[in-house]
Amino acid sequence: MKTLHLYTAFLRVLTLGALLAVGIDAQAQTDPLPSWNDGAAKQAIVAFVKDTTTQGSPKFVPPAERIATFDQDGTLWVEHPMYSFAMYALESVPALIKAKPELAKVPPFSTVLEILKGDRAAVAKLTMPDVEKILAATYTNRSVDQFNAEVTKWIAEAKDPRWKKPYTELTYLPMQEVLTYLRANGFKTYIVTGGGQDFVRTYSEKVYGIPPEQVVGTAGVVKYSYAKDGKPYLFKEPKLLLNDDFTGKPEGIHLMIGRRPLMAAGNSGGDRQMLEYTKSGDGARLSMLVLHDDAKREYAYGPAKGLPNTKVGTFTQALYDEATKKGWIVISMKDDWKRIFAFGP
Amino acid sequence: MKTLHLYTAFLRVLTLGALLAVGIDAQAQTDPLPSWNDGAAKQAIVAFVKDTTTQGSPKFVPPAERIATFDQDGTLWVEHPMYSFAMYALESVPALIKAKPELAKVPPFSTVLEILKGDRAAVAKLTMPDVEKILAATYTNRSVDQFNAEVTKWIAEAKDPRWKKPYTELTYLPMQEVLTYLRANGFKTYIVTGGGQDFVRTYSEKVYGIPPEQVVGTAGVVKYSYAKDGKPYLFKEPKLLLNDDFTGKPEGIHLMIGRRPLMAAGNSGGDRQMLEYTKSGDGARLSMLVLHDDAKREYAYGPAKGLPNTKVGTFTQALYDEATKKGWIVISMKDDWKRIFAFGP
Repeated sequence: MKTLHLYTAFLRVLTLGALLAVGIDAQAQTDPLPSWNDGAAKQAIVAFVKDTTTQGSPKFVPPAERIATFDQDGTLWVEHPMYSFAMYALESVPALIKAKPELAKVPPFSTVLEILKGDRAAVAKLTMPDVEKILAATYTNRSVDQFNAEVTKWIAEAKDPRWKKPYTELTYLPMQEVLTYLRANGFKTYIVTGGGQDFVRTYSEKVYGIPPEQVVGTAGVVKYSYAKDGKPYLFKEPKLLLNDDFTGKPEGIHLMIGRRPLMAAGNSGGDRQMLEYTKSGDGARLSMLVLHDDAKREYAYGPAKGLPNTKVGTFTQALYDEATKKGWIVISMKDDWKRIFAFGP
Repeated sequence: MKTLHLYTAFLRVLTLGALLAVGIDAQAQTDPLPSWNDGAAKQAIVAFVKDTTTQGSPKFVPPAERIATFDQDGTLWVEHPMYSFAMYALESVPALIKAKPELAKVPPFSTVLEILKGDRAAVAKLTMPDVEKILAATYTNRSVDQFNAEVTKWIAEAKDPRWKKPYTELTYLPMQEVLTYLRANGFKTYIVTGGGQDFVRTYSEKVYGIPPEQVVGTAGVVKYSYAKDGKPYLFKEPKLLLNDDFTGKPEGIHLMIGRRPLMAAGNSGGDRQMLEYTKSGDGARLSMLVLHDDAKREYAYGPAKGLPNTKVGTFTQALYDEATKKGWIVISMKDDWKRIFAFGP
């Protein structure tokens, strides 16, 4: 009997609490995207979230199916002058050479030394097999634990050449707001990156609030092995398992998530298939592309819209035209973003 | 000022609610594992959850790191006389033959027809390449959507030969209780199965409360393709990407989760490496093996402990000895489980 009384009292208190909470919420309701200028992009995001999460809306989606996928480089953080996962590979070469001095005279490692000494033009000497050799040498042939320790050390110390800040501070505040806004509305947020899956997983939780199991990236074969003391460990083999770029993005999403996203964001040709796959599902879908058109506050590159061409995060005019035709939202950094970084501007 | 008042009132109400809730909780606290007999296995599970989730405990683990992985066949549901993912393959052969009648006379499909007609001994005729051929023909060379539709139809209609019930009702109630208990304590529960990842994902949420993105299984290559109308779709190629058994289990866990589990459960040699990997991490870890020693209520097979030998879910004496030596908990279905199925007994 006493329990029942307590229970009823508890229910009453809870109901009162809920009513008060609603009252407060309505009063305290603030803009979830304060770093966005009011425009088509911001309106599309807010409308999409409202449509998919409002009970009774014809486009309502149950929380379990609210999956949103984000490219990382150029979409969530700066990718120029060079992807940070590639900077990691280049800057890890001196340590490699310290362990095996004979590499100092062997291309492509000798070329990397020239680049690190400041000869930026030497980058042009690197062929695709060269890049693969450098990535294999710095990302594989070691245990997962060793690799994680090496990346954790590098990411804590490395600085971007322009802002002289850690890469982890060069995330776009407006996109961080979108991640937070989506999660507050029951979405599960994922990173789907062409960068190394193990690489991004070392910092994703700290930097984006995205746990390792919600990072899909380029992944190599890992082999279950035993140390001399009999302890098992995972060894990173120099063999590609998933190339998470272009068609590899929807393929990786199927492998690791198993559901079509409701929403996806990217910024270059490597994201095209993910945006197409997302948008071709039923019901409310949102596909977005970040256009880097702000030379002053960040960078300007395309070549879409007559912006300078680039090999890092190429956004062609054809992609821009396709986006316009298919209703993918193009986000102009210059016009849509009030602020770009948490540290300003 | 009014807002502040409301806010203070709200906080007071919330605090009162929390206090009352604690009071009720202490009174209403019931056994989270009612289908378990009180014994070493149940005690180990309860102690593990208490150790890892009690604030201030030396073995406390933050919620984000609470990962638990479960084999499916023989651990969460019945696997005898044959794995249900294999039954699916066999029972899909008549439809294959309907589409291509010439297959009726070609082994191994002709052999499958004999088996389905009741000639159980014909199973012995199937070689490993035969099994691979049957799996490829029934699991691949179709779109993901078509496969999902086929499995969804089959699983709704297929019945286990002994209990004449859908396979989805043959889950072990004590293990369902463990899944619920872990989730109530902030754990993320995963299935890590040698069965087909796409297969298990079609029903995992409904049957176990485990969403598709928390199913790691044997997976094939999937190819992003276009239909005639230009719509993209995913095509299941007859090519293996991840063989999620034995060493493939910890390798798959790394690929899809990226963290070492705190807890793992299995029932056969294919789970050995997952249990070893789990248990060799730091802090509190729990590895468990279900021993099928209940011929009356379910099945009895080993050959551990002198139980009859089997090719389906083999649990050797060597595995039993290793479990004893390394502190992996062996769950006796006969002694540890008060009830086995929700429908009784």
